[in-house]
Amino acid sequence: MTADHSMSRAADVRMCGFARRSTVQAALAWVDGHSPRLEAERASVWLAAVRVLAADVVSQADVPQFARSMMDGYALRAADTQGATAYNRLPLAVIGQSLPGKPFEGIVGKGQAICIMTGAPLPAGADAVLPAEQIEIQGDTIFALDEVPPGKNVGRRGEDVSAGTTVFKAGRVLRPQDLGVLSSMGQREISVVRKPRVQLVITGNELLPAGSPAEGYQIADANGPMLAALVARDGGNARIASGGREPPDGSAPVADQPEREADASRSPMINYLVPDDPAEILAAMRENSADIVIVSGGSSVGQEDHAPILLAEHGDLAIHGIAMRPSSPTGMGILDGKLVFLLPGNPVSCLCAYDFFAGRAIRRLAGRSADWPYASRRLPLARKLVSQVGRVDYARVRIANGQVEPISISGASILTSTTQADGFVIVAADSEGFAAGTNVDVFLYD
Amino acid sequence: MTADHSMSRAADVRMCGFARRSTVQAALAWVDGHSPRLEAERASVWLAAVRVLAADVVSQADVPQFARSMMDGYALRAADTQGATAYNRLPLAVIGQSLPGKPFEGIVGKGQAICIMTGAPLPAGADAVLPAEQIEIQGDTIFALDEVPPGKNVGRRGEDVSAGTTVFKAGRVLRPQDLGVLSSMGQREISVVRKPRVQLVITGNELLPAGSPAEGYQIADANGPMLAALVARDGGNARIASGGREPPDGSAPVADQPEREADASRSPMINYLVPDDPAEILAAMRENSADIVIVSGGSSVGQEDHAPILLAEHGDLAIHGIAMRPSSPTGMGILDGKLVFLLPGNPVSCLCAYDFFAGRAIRRLAGRSADWPYASRRLPLARKLVSQVGRVDYARVRIANGQVEPISISGASILTSTTQADGFVIVAADSEGFAAGTNVDVFLYD
Repeated sequence: MTADHSMSRAADVRMCGFARRSTVQAALAWVDGHSPRLEAERASVWLAAVRVLAADVVSQADVPQFARSMMDGYALRAADTQGATAYNRLPLAVIGQSLPGKPFEGIVGKGQAICIMTGAPLPAGADAVLPAEQIEIQGDTIFALDEVPPGKNVGRRGEDVSAGTTVFKAGRVLRPQDLGVLSSMGQREISVVRKPRVQLVITGNELLPAGSPAEGYQIADANGPMLAALVARDGGNARIASGGREPPDGSAPVADQPEREADASRSPMINYLVPDDPAEILAAMRENSADIVIVSGGSSVGQEDHAPILLAEHGDLAIHGIAMRPSSPTGMGILDGKLVFLLPGNPVSCLCAYDFFAGRAIRRLAGRSADWPYASRRLPLARKLVSQVGRVDYARVRIANGQVEPISISGASILTSTTQADGFVIVAADSEGFAAGTNVDVFLYD
Repeated sequence: MTADHSMSRAADVRMCGFARRSTVQAALAWVDGHSPRLEAERASVWLAAVRVLAADVVSQADVPQFARSMMDGYALRAADTQGATAYNRLPLAVIGQSLPGKPFEGIVGKGQAICIMTGAPLPAGADAVLPAEQIEIQGDTIFALDEVPPGKNVGRRGEDVSAGTTVFKAGRVLRPQDLGVLSSMGQREISVVRKPRVQLVITGNELLPAGSPAEGYQIADANGPMLAALVARDGGNARIASGGREPPDGSAPVADQPEREADASRSPMINYLVPDDPAEILAAMRENSADIVIVSGGSSVGQEDHAPILLAEHGDLAIHGIAMRPSSPTGMGILDGKLVFLLPGNPVSCLCAYDFFAGRAIRRLAGRSADWPYASRRLPLARKLVSQVGRVDYARVRIANGQVEPISISGASILTSTTQADGFVIVAADSEGFAAGTNVDVFLYD
């Protein structure tokens, strides 16, 4: 073997690195230009929480569809209570009762009342409810001890939702109580934005399936489980390439079937990994119908970095190499109409590039906010944070005593730098970093 | 029918209300005294995101298990580069290469180098990596243009995780990157706190199944879908009572099978509702093995309020009636060793009582923080917020122009008051409310 033969391409490239790196800004603009909200699908009202409404919801009917009592008490004509006090008890004949779902079918006449429970329909004739605390009972007669104005303690028809109202706007991320309102409106199924289907292609000859004990110089894949969880968090359905082998048990791990897959005896231990072989990588990228393909590993310009070349040859490699650290060897483009993200194999780079670009695309396709899916806090730096002008930095930090402490271990291979961190700070490309005491926005991992 | 006969119990109770209301504080203390963290179960590393670690995780091995290159370049003996500059190029013989997973098996001797890629094992003999940018190539010889100290550009064995380290503490809510680290450590399955099983019992003769169009004086159940979503959010597995009928399709809606159930053609439209009948309610409370039973509706002291009496007769009704608004007719206790929460049927009360008590119990059983699962912001009130001394108030508010505006529609039946709100403010029992301009904590629904 001669160095200049076997390594020639890699060496060439290494000498010059990426011919030209894109800015983070340009890459984000590309993502935003290629990730329109997906079409609608129907979801059961039982299962639509955290889904995104695909269209405005306009109520077709009043909720409730009848006037109802807001109290336990007596439905009557308000006029009949006029002048009632404890010293001027006014008698009313109790002629029936109204329970929720079991209304009084007659008409409440002058001098009459019916016993009514909270939520029960207000009977015809009655226009108010006198609370039980304001009466005395004697056989079939009650005595009003106080007067009530018309409408008192009555919930009017349509008071929760009135017909024709736009109850929710398209794009709303549905809350639990929204499902209650939609259910009340007679919506058994909700029109929500379809979840993006995400094909994960985990490459690397050095890898063993996730959770394998290390063997010799082989290491367990860290990116597969991490990416599957990130995709689920961002509202996508992750599906992992089977590496050309039979998919196990009908399908490979899909992130949103926790109950089924949490059954330990069925944990996937198949080798889903895709070797560093161009034909196998291409096949895995094309294996399933997907909206997005995420390739982990082999995204740079070395001799084992096949994915960028494949994407350039068979599709469109729109961006390759980004002025940022980590994650500089990130690529993106289009293959067979699908969005493709080429993420570095180093796990910190993989996480960072996912969050910057692939996750953003998934969130946008899913109809969610494109923003970081992390809460942020503005806090002062405990010590200076140095960055290089010309690239965006993703700096892991701890928060201690209300101050932000950069984590000094910054290697892209040290994934524990992101588990020991409380979050990260982004340093813009035109910044040399920040002096101690500067207030910075920390995006919190939790 | 005579009022004093059929309504006697209800009327008695109505005249005096609850004999004695518990304080919110006492009810919370009861919850905390009866919701110990559940036992551990195993979950696949692919599906353990957002699960809670049941035990500390101590690494059994170094990650990585070998020293590796941090750069694309040449592995060599650092001493061989001593004195190298562009004007004093020092030659080294390239004798092989090391790729990730395909190490160089020989020993790098004095005056020798091997071509090495990022992540590849450092060969025996070598103690540093000279980046590709700092060499020139001539055939099988490279010339070092700069010197490197020992250890330079080398990731040491165990630099990510060293054997014996406690990597994660019990109780940690697992992040996506945590799964990557656990996978690297050879953990195919993780010991996590079991998810609480929650039996939902939705009662009310006036109810139709969720999402039904209203008919006559029947209204669609709003609480079932809302509670199922709340339980899922808090880390529980909701299962809905089948109301004594055959459960549909093997099981009723389970909140965390979104993919399967989102299939619209299979949306449950069975009548899972439990009639206001003591025997049926008791059967539904006992139907499935569960950690927690949540009964919606019939929780007060009226003639159709069977659940509190059943709980008192067959188990322990520890608390019934709480000094708060809404949700005052809330109960809790123990039946057959299971925690039981009796929530009011009015949907706002149901939401509020769930969040205060049942949700807290689920979060605690699941090993999560007992706190409100809502972010909070401290903001000034736009106008005064009045409350009554002696009870806790749950006031829905909007945020506009950075100020907090109480929502005036406060009926417990108006669920849209919680969908139009941005969040809520809690007013303590000893407070008469807050003046305009007071800074208050708003818990945000989103």
